[in-house]
Amino acid sequence: MMNGWRIPTTLAMLRSCTQRSLLSVPFSTTSRVNANRAVVFSEAGRPASVLRTHTFPTLSSPPAGSVNIRYRLAPVNPSDINVIEGSYPLRPVPDVSVSSDGKLFVPGNEGLGEVTAVGDDVQGLSVGDWVVVAKQQSGTWVSARSARAEDVIKLPKGDVSEVNAATIIVNPPTAYNMLREFVDLKEGDWVVQNGANSAVGQVVIQIAARRGIKTINFVRNRENFEELERQLKALGATHVLRYDDLADKEKIKTVQSWTKDAPIRLFLNCVGGNSVTKTLRLVGHDAHLVTYGAMAREPLTLPASPLIFKGLVARGFWQSHWYDMHGRKEREELMRALVDLKLKGPEHEIVTVPGNVNDEEASQLICETMRRMSEGKSGRKVMLRIEERLD
Amino acid sequence: MMNGWRIPTTLAMLRSCTQRSLLSVPFSTTSRVNANRAVVFSEAGRPASVLRTHTFPTLSSPPAGSVNIRYRLAPVNPSDINVIEGSYPLRPVPDVSVSSDGKLFVPGNEGLGEVTAVGDDVQGLSVGDWVVVAKQQSGTWVSARSARAEDVIKLPKGDVSEVNAATIIVNPPTAYNMLREFVDLKEGDWVVQNGANSAVGQVVIQIAARRGIKTINFVRNRENFEELERQLKALGATHVLRYDDLADKEKIKTVQSWTKDAPIRLFLNCVGGNSVTKTLRLVGHDAHLVTYGAMAREPLTLPASPLIFKGLVARGFWQSHWYDMHGRKEREELMRALVDLKLKGPEHEIVTVPGNVNDEEASQLICETMRRMSEGKSGRKVMLRIEERLD
Repeated sequence: MMNGWRIPTTLAMLRSCTQRSLLSVPFSTTSRVNANRAVVFSEAGRPASVLRTHTFPTLSSPPAGSVNIRYRLAPVNPSDINVIEGSYPLRPVPDVSVSSDGKLFVPGNEGLGEVTAVGDDVQGLSVGDWVVVAKQQSGTWVSARSARAEDVIKLPKGDVSEVNAATIIVNPPTAYNMLREFVDLKEGDWVVQNGANSAVGQVVIQIAARRGIKTINFVRNRENFEELERQLKALGATHVLRYDDLADKEKIKTVQSWTKDAPIRLFLNCVGGNSVTKTLRLVGHDAHLVTYGAMAREPLTLPASPLIFKGLVARGFWQSHWYDMHGRKEREELMRALVDLKLKGPEHEIVTVPGNVNDEEASQLICETMRRMSEGKSGRKVMLRIEERLD
Repeated sequence: MMNGWRIPTTLAMLRSCTQRSLLSVPFSTTSRVNANRAVVFSEAGRPASVLRTHTFPTLSSPPAGSVNIRYRLAPVNPSDINVIEGSYPLRPVPDVSVSSDGKLFVPGNEGLGEVTAVGDDVQGLSVGDWVVVAKQQSGTWVSARSARAEDVIKLPKGDVSEVNAATIIVNPPTAYNMLREFVDLKEGDWVVQNGANSAVGQVVIQIAARRGIKTINFVRNRENFEELERQLKALGATHVLRYDDLADKEKIKTVQSWTKDAPIRLFLNCVGGNSVTKTLRLVGHDAHLVTYGAMAREPLTLPASPLIFKGLVARGFWQSHWYDMHGRKEREELMRALVDLKLKGPEHEIVTVPGNVNDEEASQLICETMRRMSEGKSGRKVMLRIEERLD
């Protein structure tokens, strides 16, 4: 999840991907129609350099216990980039459904799928259902794939937009679970978070506001701070502050006066580094500092005193681990709860890989998109719509 | 408890205390016999500069719910020095039992007392009982005092030596509770700790060995390392290593091979700083890093990765807080369990403040002892025996 990830913009990333897209692309040798397409890579590296598209045959009928899925929309998340770069603790397994040579990996950890065929011994899933796959690194940047039914979570189709559904399994549950797993928060309680305008941060604000929990939201200083403050307050933020405010004794006293009757017991951190240590002064006894990202790429610095004398507990949260620990029923309950929250979807742009272009053109489109992201030109979440091939 | 505390040896500490002991000492104005003596201070500062002794009258009969105690032996713990220096989060309250002007503080957080009188409405305590006082900063560097019965824990007299009884309420329960409160350790499991030759560390080794739990014990490099290694192994240590070994890849692999079938889930830390971060590489998933001291006077540096992806939980332990949270029955059970463990007592020297010297001489003895400790000349725990006054 590492939601705080930022795309490095080095010269190496700016080299043209035209060269790379001239590399030979293995074609399937089966007799089925080559109707599907996946974004793939064979070796870890800069996304703009190592990604390409690959065409593969129509799916066979799903085996017992499996379903076939057509992917409608899949986001490009920071953690996906980490996986492609090889800096994520999990690697995808070689994807034999797109190529039997065992050398291709399909990125993508979340996305909205639609069931197109149901194998034997599958309960509770029908053709046309909207689904997400909770298995880590399942490879969602693809037009279609099969999946084990046990990894599939059905969504309440019709109650949720495509964009919200495609981005529902990582960030919203991270926020939702961090707000309920560690501290028993009641109406009127306070939560402090940094990276408050991250995808998770914005969901934290929304869920807290619905529950009557007040939030103190730290963001970086920026030219348009007031605009961001307005946006976050529109989502339900109680207060929005800058990390610079942590050096201002009067501001600190103000925060302490807000929370003195309900000392802060939950601090959500996706940044790391020095500001975390300073923010600890704002929290009360027996607080939990929950880390789910490391945007500053710096470790936490924790003095012994709050650990020993104030009962501080520092821990992490990883939604993938949550899925590993919870069964289908709990997963579906989680999705139902998230859909019912009617969360504001992420600001996004959809990049469609059309069915009528060849892999060379499609590869070029993908790596231009990646390069544009790495240059920070898109402030919005990029979502991939990879169409079935028409030719 | 901050068991890792080290006495600073600055020039300021070396100035003679003779000057200071010439300060006027307030004498009691009551008509009772001045038969008791306490070590006291009025303002925080270097122990060798601010401590003196003070004579006060024989205790009155204890009020309802209280007992009178004669102190037999009280240790000088690192946390006591912190309190006197003013660097501990808790200050003792002015001690009106030794002086009604409300300006004198009596240091001392633990010690062995003997009940000399029992007030009304006190159950389960009799004259002659050996007791300890679990109230924080109760002021034990004194010949006698009264105490509320609810703060008093009775010891199984006869089953425990004076020295072990006088040092039973801080370090042994810290070790005992850290080994049972966070991780469900079974025979054959591993624990790693730093500061392994500290008072707590040595008890950890002993309790773990009795329970069949294996320990990896880190200590500073030193000339007589082999001797220390032998001593700690004689207590039950499985392995003794130096912090320098953390830079040695082969050593790290060796440790990993020891623990590969039972990954380490408990890491006890009284040091802090860089070595903690390195030691984290040795621990397995879902481990608890429990901090109870800060000998290196440096904060912990925790990368986000073990928190998020390995389920690491960093927390603190403070035995004083444990007492606050537990009633008399649980406290007595704890003492019984500790006595039954027949722990090796600390290496110690007893400093007796004799009953037949005046306060000027007694003050000089106390601050010479403190100066000697600050110069690191005593490798052994100093224990005070403050006798009743005879003159």
